[in-house]
Amino acid sequence: MNNSSTPWETISELLQSGTRPELARFIDSLGSYETARAISRLTEEEQQKLFSLLSPEDAADVIEGVSEAQAADMVENLPSDQAAAIMEELSSDHLVDVLGEMDDDISDSILAKMDKEDADEARMLLNYAPDCAGGLMISEFLSFRIDQTIQDVLDDLQSNQAKYGDYNVQYIYVADHSGKLDGVLRMHNLLFPPRNTLLADIMIRSPLLVTDNAPLEELRSFFEEHRLFGVPVVNTKQQMVGVVLPSAIEEEVNKQKTRAFLRLSGIIGGEEFRTMPLAIRSSRRLSWLSINIVLNIMAASVIALYQDTLAAAITLAVFLPMVSDMSGCSGNQAVAVSMRELSLRLVKPKEIIWVLLKEAKVGIINGIVLGLLLGTVAYLWQGNIWLGVVVGGALAANTLVSVTLGGALPLILKRVKMDPALVSSPLLTTVTDMCGFFFVLSFAAAVLPKL
Amino acid sequence: MNNSSTPWETISELLQSGTRPELARFIDSLGSYETARAISRLTEEEQQKLFSLLSPEDAADVIEGVSEAQAADMVENLPSDQAAAIMEELSSDHLVDVLGEMDDDISDSILAKMDKEDADEARMLLNYAPDCAGGLMISEFLSFRIDQTIQDVLDDLQSNQAKYGDYNVQYIYVADHSGKLDGVLRMHNLLFPPRNTLLADIMIRSPLLVTDNAPLEELRSFFEEHRLFGVPVVNTKQQMVGVVLPSAIEEEVNKQKTRAFLRLSGIIGGEEFRTMPLAIRSSRRLSWLSINIVLNIMAASVIALYQDTLAAAITLAVFLPMVSDMSGCSGNQAVAVSMRELSLRLVKPKEIIWVLLKEAKVGIINGIVLGLLLGTVAYLWQGNIWLGVVVGGALAANTLVSVTLGGALPLILKRVKMDPALVSSPLLTTVTDMCGFFFVLSFAAAVLPKL
Repeated sequence: MNNSSTPWETISELLQSGTRPELARFIDSLGSYETARAISRLTEEEQQKLFSLLSPEDAADVIEGVSEAQAADMVENLPSDQAAAIMEELSSDHLVDVLGEMDDDISDSILAKMDKEDADEARMLLNYAPDCAGGLMISEFLSFRIDQTIQDVLDDLQSNQAKYGDYNVQYIYVADHSGKLDGVLRMHNLLFPPRNTLLADIMIRSPLLVTDNAPLEELRSFFEEHRLFGVPVVNTKQQMVGVVLPSAIEEEVNKQKTRAFLRLSGIIGGEEFRTMPLAIRSSRRLSWLSINIVLNIMAASVIALYQDTLAAAITLAVFLPMVSDMSGCSGNQAVAVSMRELSLRLVKPKEIIWVLLKEAKVGIINGIVLGLLLGTVAYLWQGNIWLGVVVGGALAANTLVSVTLGGALPLILKRVKMDPALVSSPLLTTVTDMCGFFFVLSFAAAVLPKL
Repeated sequence: MNNSSTPWETISELLQSGTRPELARFIDSLGSYETARAISRLTEEEQQKLFSLLSPEDAADVIEGVSEAQAADMVENLPSDQAAAIMEELSSDHLVDVLGEMDDDISDSILAKMDKEDADEARMLLNYAPDCAGGLMISEFLSFRIDQTIQDVLDDLQSNQAKYGDYNVQYIYVADHSGKLDGVLRMHNLLFPPRNTLLADIMIRSPLLVTDNAPLEELRSFFEEHRLFGVPVVNTKQQMVGVVLPSAIEEEVNKQKTRAFLRLSGIIGGEEFRTMPLAIRSSRRLSWLSINIVLNIMAASVIALYQDTLAAAITLAVFLPMVSDMSGCSGNQAVAVSMRELSLRLVKPKEIIWVLLKEAKVGIINGIVLGLLLGTVAYLWQGNIWLGVVVGGALAANTLVSVTLGGALPLILKRVKMDPALVSSPLLTTVTDMCGFFFVLSFAAAVLPKL
């Protein structure tokens, strides 16, 4: 193990010639990010060999450090009993996230090999959408009955100390005789009263709660409103099934932002990692690009219609991509502001008119400024004032179109239940390209003798 | 108050003719998102009037519901003693976030009017960068000395019950005689031993901790590694100054993602809300667009150099924007994958060669596929095989350039300490435009008689 070799080279070597404890010790010595990076650089065979050598606990530690999509890829390749042994070591929320990334038949076969209790719980959690309370909650929480006393709680805590170590024990939840969530206690409320006090007598009744199908947005506004360290989740029978922590909400928002960013950039069909097979990376990117090529052909066909005009004033060819590119940038700014305001709920999808008016003002001002700029450049370059007028006028008009369209598009797409991150940008580009080409060439056609 | 009026119309009405309790009740009836939206739609005068009518507590509730940038805008407009009264009601982390968004002289004058203890604490917190442990921690935590007993803790808890209501009391921290953090206890560890037990005897020694200047990345990997509900923060003297909760880390990551998204879309100089004055919105967007116009002129000048070629084969004008747009899309995909892998630390900024090789393969495959597609379209349209070869070849070559450049650019920018989100996209677009125009026109010039 010389110092200049990368961690994955060291792991490769250890896989061939090292002992199991050496391997475990080396991986343990890496930080969580380093481990994730090193594992991802191993070949599929090396990954399999590694997981078969590590104890399920160590393997689970590795799995917890990598992204869910990667974890699922790695575990899918393992024999299902080995996968099951590793998955049993994961916390319930992690387990469900990783299983959720797999094909159903693979996750079913892993669940079949798992401890029945764990598997049943995972199946229950898998039934929830990943972005509702049921999908975001942890199922580790402390719950007692109203007829129990403080002493009962203490006895339980003492006999389960190891198990409860990982629990968030800010709160103790209390259920009534039929199992319905009836009250909540903070841990320190147990400290003062006599130990034979009934929980019913010291708990806070009708606690704040959410239902298991509560969507992410509701949970976000819940924690905006109430600065709590967790909220109990109940099913339709009002029985408590888990706790949602504020960090889980933020984490899910993060995930959704990442996905939106990737889709906005044309990475669709799941996250891409450079360690994935080339065929998958190429084909996923191509699936998006081939739609784009069709949109581009549509836009460029406007130029084809005006070939004669363009041939007569060939300098315009310089400005065609400029007008469309610049307007595209202006439109993307408006898209970003709308997507931001939508996510903060500062604007509702139906307020299209309000957005159009707000954006039209910016579009007019910025259109005039940019049009004057580009028009002046065109005039100075060729000494032809009409060229300046055509180019500047086209940019001004197209800026107005693209800014208003860019502002409205995310709202419209949201209303028709389409994904603004996926559709806004290509749609906007196509329209602003078409309009940009059309404005430049039709304005030019109108004053052609002067150009 | 008829049902069809918007919440902000109702607030406007109440500001003119309603009583203060009516106003407070109405605002209380709105959800946190609705309140934020309604307040943001009021005029500046109405906002001021509203804050002067509401009690500081109610005003603080409103402030907590809006984004920090908006909160700062609203509070800045208030008389400083009124602003101070409201700010005192905010939790320490919120307070610092809002003050951090203000100009220094305004935040200073507000701090001067605040309760000295609160102000001193805020000043201390303001000294930290917002994305290090000191800037992310809450300063509400329970700390005792090693020579105190369980009974001392209980007495303190009982006499400060109201104050501690908002605290995260999973953990109790224990300092030694010199004030250094020495141990940690979970709340339930207090339940079992006799009440005269010294904290020193039951605490866990050498607790996990972070220093106050620990950067966000370190905190992220800390919580990746340790599934804790909070980590104590110590200053250079090893004294505890606060607690970082995992939700604060996720929230900050979220904020940074949002900022990166906005910058990537050309919204710079701070967040834009449509309720901001038109002049600010227009000029901020223009500052970005005017840089872009210069880059666009640079790119388009390549076309100007080849005007004769273009005039001789005017059909090429149709394909110029297509080749540059398509390559731009391919390049953006690679940018997104690199930014994602950088943020997950799956790739290090110095691994440019590895990324170049990985991207070159995708670039070659996708370049060939897209080149064949577009080349065929060009050939079918004009019946000229050479046009197909020129256009397809140019797209293939330019796809390779843009994909490799797009993949490498975020790493290069990161190495030279520039912001990939801000610089990647305009730089990539300029280069792929230039190269795209150059490939099409120089290939065409080489076979001009045949076109």
